[in-house]
Amino acid sequence: MLFVSDNAAPVHPKVIEAIAEANHADIAYDGDAYSARLDGAFSELFERDVRVLWVTTGTAANCLALAALCPPYGAIVCHRDAHIEVDEAGAPGFFTGGAKLMLVDGAGAKVAPDGLAAACDRIRPDVHQVQPTTLSITNATEYGLSYRASEVAALGEIARARGLGFHMDGARLANALAFTGERPADVTWRAGVDALSFGFVKNGGLNAEALVLFRTDLADEIAVRRKRSGHLLSKGRFLAAQLLALLKDDLWLANAGAANDVARRIAAAASHRLLYPVEANELFLRVSAEEAAALRAQGFDFYDWGPGEIRLVASWDGQGESADRLAAAIAAL
Amino acid sequence: MLFVSDNAAPVHPKVIEAIAEANHADIAYDGDAYSARLDGAFSELFERDVRVLWVTTGTAANCLALAALCPPYGAIVCHRDAHIEVDEAGAPGFFTGGAKLMLVDGAGAKVAPDGLAAACDRIRPDVHQVQPTTLSITNATEYGLSYRASEVAALGEIARARGLGFHMDGARLANALAFTGERPADVTWRAGVDALSFGFVKNGGLNAEALVLFRTDLADEIAVRRKRSGHLLSKGRFLAAQLLALLKDDLWLANAGAANDVARRIAAAASHRLLYPVEANELFLRVSAEEAAALRAQGFDFYDWGPGEIRLVASWDGQGESADRLAAAIAAL
Amino acid sequence: MLFVSDNAAPVHPKVIEAIAEANHADIAYDGDAYSARLDGAFSELFERDVRVLWVTTGTAANCLALAALCPPYGAIVCHRDAHIEVDEAGAPGFFTGGAKLMLVDGAGAKVAPDGLAAACDRIRPDVHQVQPTTLSITNATEYGLSYRASEVAALGEIARARGLGFHMDGARLANALAFTGERPADVTWRAGVDALSFGFVKNGGLNAEALVLFRTDLADEIAVRRKRSGHLLSKGRFLAAQLLALLKDDLWLANAGAANDVARRIAAAASHRLLYPVEANELFLRVSAEEAAALRAQGFDFYDWGPGEIRLVASWDGQGESADRLAAAIAAL
Amino acid sequence: MLFVSDNAAPVHPKVIEAIAEANHADIAYDGDAYSARLDGAFSELFERDVRVLWVTTGTAANCLALAALCPPYGAIVCHRDAHIEVDEAGAPGFFTGGAKLMLVDGAGAKVAPDGLAAACDRIRPDVHQVQPTTLSITNATEYGLSYRASEVAALGEIARARGLGFHMDGARLANALAFTGERPADVTWRAGVDALSFGFVKNGGLNAEALVLFRTDLADEIAVRRKRSGHLLSKGRFLAAQLLALLKDDLWLANAGAANDVARRIAAAASHRLLYPVEANELFLRVSAEEAAALRAQGFDFYDWGPGEIRLVASWDGQGESADRLAAAIAAL
Repeated sequence: MLFVSDNAAPVHPKVIEAIAEANHADIAYDGDAYSARLDGAFSELFERDVRVLWVTTGTAANCLALAALCPPYGAIVCHRDAHIEVDEAGAPGFFTGGAKLMLVDGAGAKVAPDGLAAACDRIRPDVHQVQPTTLSITNATEYGLSYRASEVAALGEIARARGLGFHMDGARLANALAFTGERPADVTWRAGVDALSFGFVKNGGLNAEALVLFRTDLADEIAVRRKRSGHLLSKGRFLAAQLLALLKDDLWLANAGAANDVARRIAAAASHRLLYPVEANELFLRVSAEEAAALRAQGFDFYDWGPGEIRLVASWDGQGESADRLAAAIAAL
Repeated sequence: MLFVSDNAAPVHPKVIEAIAEANHADIAYDGDAYSARLDGAFSELFERDVRVLWVTTGTAANCLALAALCPPYGAIVCHRDAHIEVDEAGAPGFFTGGAKLMLVDGAGAKVAPDGLAAACDRIRPDVHQVQPTTLSITNATEYGLSYRASEVAALGEIARARGLGFHMDGARLANALAFTGERPADVTWRAGVDALSFGFVKNGGLNAEALVLFRTDLADEIAVRRKRSGHLLSKGRFLAAQLLALLKDDLWLANAGAANDVARRIAAAASHRLLYPVEANELFLRVSAEEAAALRAQGFDFYDWGPGEIRLVASWDGQGESADRLAAAIAAL
Repeated sequence: MLFVSDNAAPVHPKVIEAIAEANHADIAYDGDAYSARLDGAFSELFERDVRVLWVTTGTAANCLALAALCPPYGAIVCHRDAHIEVDEAGAPGFFTGGAKLMLVDGAGAKVAPDGLAAACDRIRPDVHQVQPTTLSITNATEYGLSYRASEVAALGEIARARGLGFHMDGARLANALAFTGERPADVTWRAGVDALSFGFVKNGGLNAEALVLFRTDLADEIAVRRKRSGHLLSKGRFLAAQLLALLKDDLWLANAGAANDVARRIAAAASHRLLYPVEANELFLRVSAEEAAALRAQGFDFYDWGPGEIRLVASWDGQGESADRLAAAIAAL
Repeated sequence: MLFVSDNAAPVHPKVIEAIAEANHADIAYDGDAYSARLDGAFSELFERDVRVLWVTTGTAANCLALAALCPPYGAIVCHRDAHIEVDEAGAPGFFTGGAKLMLVDGAGAKVAPDGLAAACDRIRPDVHQVQPTTLSITNATEYGLSYRASEVAALGEIARARGLGFHMDGARLANALAFTGERPADVTWRAGVDALSFGFVKNGGLNAEALVLFRTDLADEIAVRRKRSGHLLSKGRFLAAQLLALLKDDLWLANAGAANDVARRIAAAASHRLLYPVEANELFLRVSAEEAAALRAQGFDFYDWGPGEIRLVASWDGQGESADRLAAAIAAL
């Protein structure tokens, strides 16, 4: 009964099947038949030509994109609670060659347009200060909020006006889209996003993430950086096959919807404890240390977020009866 | 009938099985039950305590080790034809923060003791020249030769005397050991090796390589560098499970032996064409452009190595009848 | 009548003299007779053996020290207003290979002991978060406050307990010492400081700063990093000669005292406008835009710090009558 | 009687004078009146608009240019004996973020057109190999040969055709031009050079080198990189003043001519010992260990280049009678 992380969840059976089916000799690296189909499959989903590179982690997807968008001497504006700032071990600094993260605040880990503008305005345009060159947002956010397309577009507008590249960390983009019901195109490139880390591992995949490039001119450089950072797997067909399996018949969206549904059911039982609205598959609850201990005693596992706060993450597999049992247990606290 | 690369080969069925069996909820990253067993399993194989980190590529294994062994301002001595010099897109420069590769020559891509010593002696010990700090060799070499333990020990002796760290790129260590019949311990740590990239992907694995640390004090730092370079997969259990499956009952050694056997059979049919002795699973043959075309016309695929030279790589799966048909076709040229 | 920066001040005549006297053939780089005397001269000043490297900028001194103290995957704790964070164009990220600055607050740009401890405590000791490894403070601070030896020692205690290296940016250390009257040793190594950027350029020098290493074991590595970053000047004797000239008869302390005196006289005339106590050669004053314009109309130049705030910096040369005229002008506002 | 290095020479009196004259308050960094005149002064010399940044070392000039011309994942083609490869402590790797030096051979340390083309042709255009992106040559070369404009143009042609940026390390460009009598414009931008490290320190300067950008679009980025690498001196006026003093009335050319003349006179006395033609201010001579000892016994100092080889470097100041005495001493061996 793990609600610690969607990374702890199993892999969707169709993904395992796809891996087994791909198990035959084929060209190495990304020269195989599966990898060759990725651009087309994602272009269809995003209603325009895109270039797609598989990688095995969200950190790699994020930082390869950021390295292409931000020079070593530039700054990436992001939320103070962004995964790239808090939980990637300084990977942006490594991949970019020392670029700086310029932190902004904003409710629920969302970057607000005025926060973005103010952060840029604070910087003197001289050689002594690191100039902002890139914006990175997380959707759904680190607090489980989902950006609407209009919100992203407002940020995209500012980014364009100030010459900032625009990256979206979509480790849980599927959950966001399952919640808002918006089109993938609307919340990304139509809103100004240049590069998207599209997460599949937390959503039923085994170890394949998609780096989707709307600025297709960046693809060749990023392909080089992928190899150079050790992320060009020699049997890439097994990554591509996973992505294709999850795209097929919108399995990715169904998985995300199932996870969101778990979160919603728990939220309904814990509405007065919610620290943030539940707009994806994460819940942040006010739960005292004693209550947390009581839940753990019943076999539930989760993350202590802060004093009197816990984080629950729901998984694509619906987690069987665990979800309802957890909801009941919380209601009974 | 692909003899282009062992990366093109399929995955061993037991590896696929192990992945399927690992498909249940578990702790993320490397907190799972499979990852927890790695140190023990490899310690048994190497007859001493080791620390092991899984990664998905040989480039990552090599460069994480090198980054821990060589400071940004140091040099890594390696053969001019080493994979880290020729085929890793400059990854050593990226991971180390700009360290230099100091190239030495040597027959069959082996580093010779006197070549190593001479390379070091050429450097003035002042701040103007980059000082050698690390040695990296490839076993089996890029030309399919296998180091004997005594040869590695001779290099290890020099490395120790000059204060060089010692890394072995063992992308095809299994093939080398299957050929020499030596013990893993003898050709590595007993010979002075500090860190070993132990390849499994070319040898029946899907995407798991093992970075084996005999200098166990490096493990914590490398674990940080692994995360920081985006190589800490969130569902690491699927990598650990692969390694355990290949270690079980020495499947890794059987696979390597099968590949070597294919190479040996083809070599027997092409003995007057061999550019190098066949001591692992690779063959380098003198074959004219016309002959190469004739082989390709019969459905064989391989790599053009140079004018009048081709490279063949045999795979763990024995490649069914392809091997004997290729042997016959070469004999018939 | 420039009060914009002590960098705008002229060079002390004795420094120019020393340069002229050093103008004869000598060994290049730091092999000359002047450079050879530096360790001794600074060791005397600091009452213990130190190693000293000249460099031409404070940024170079700071970042060479930080690169030796902090690995690429570590974090440097510093004040949010520290020069290394705000005004060095991301140089710490460049020199360290991507290390992170971990910002703390504190009145007058001083790092407070509890702020330091709290910043460290916030970090989970796992591979996902960048771990603090180094502390850097500025003395005098960016707001012209001077650390007492006891304050530095309190920080040094925490640094030692938590295994942090300790760097002091002493671009205006001379001014701080002229103010506190404390001994150089007490406010540095006796308080736990490992490496000191000792500024001379703002204090009568032309272009020589001293990187003073109390951890003398770091000197050889930093000498390599100095060359590697292009900071090993070929005619280094002209830098060493400047430092020796400023050390002689404590000229550095007299210069700093003269600058502090200017600041003190202006402060006396502007006591109700002071944003911070004046403990060195900088003043931060509440001055309206109209008042600032009035001062500028009288020929005074300075820096607009924020809305209704200006910064004045006094120079070692006493600035002749300018200081008293400025004091009078401010009093008359 | 130092013939070890032109770095050991004194500074031209007019440079010392210029420094003394610049000793008054002025705007810090490069905001001063002297720095403002540099673009104009060098534009005149080069017969076109250029942008110029002062730095204190040739290593900084070279590597700032290379960092702007070559991405971290690219390669810089240079001669195997180039200063950037042999004597800059790996600075190109540091400044570029890990780019590779791709070494070519060529008589007298000159890059030959066919060597350049061959080096590029050897690289497979895939992501596994580092692609050449930049060419760097040294003029005069490390063996004292001077490129003719036509030779540079032949390289520039290849660079243009293959999309390589083109950098010239002109630490001794003055000596080369004094020898060939060609125009600065002809041997640089008219021949395809994008960026020039124009050396003044070896030629009478104290510590000012000029980074001359014919690709003026690179200047702003390089200005940021200069600050970020700690090379923006706060009292930059003293560097600019040096450059202006050496440009005035072509003092730089006269100095270089004087040094070349010393070298020529010694060469005349040692013609049968010359390893290379003397085309600038360096001589490489066949001199046995015994002969070298005999010269040293007479008070001459120089560099042992290899077994039975010495290097002599002549200085701008003509070195008084030393030159003729050395010539006589060699003739008398």
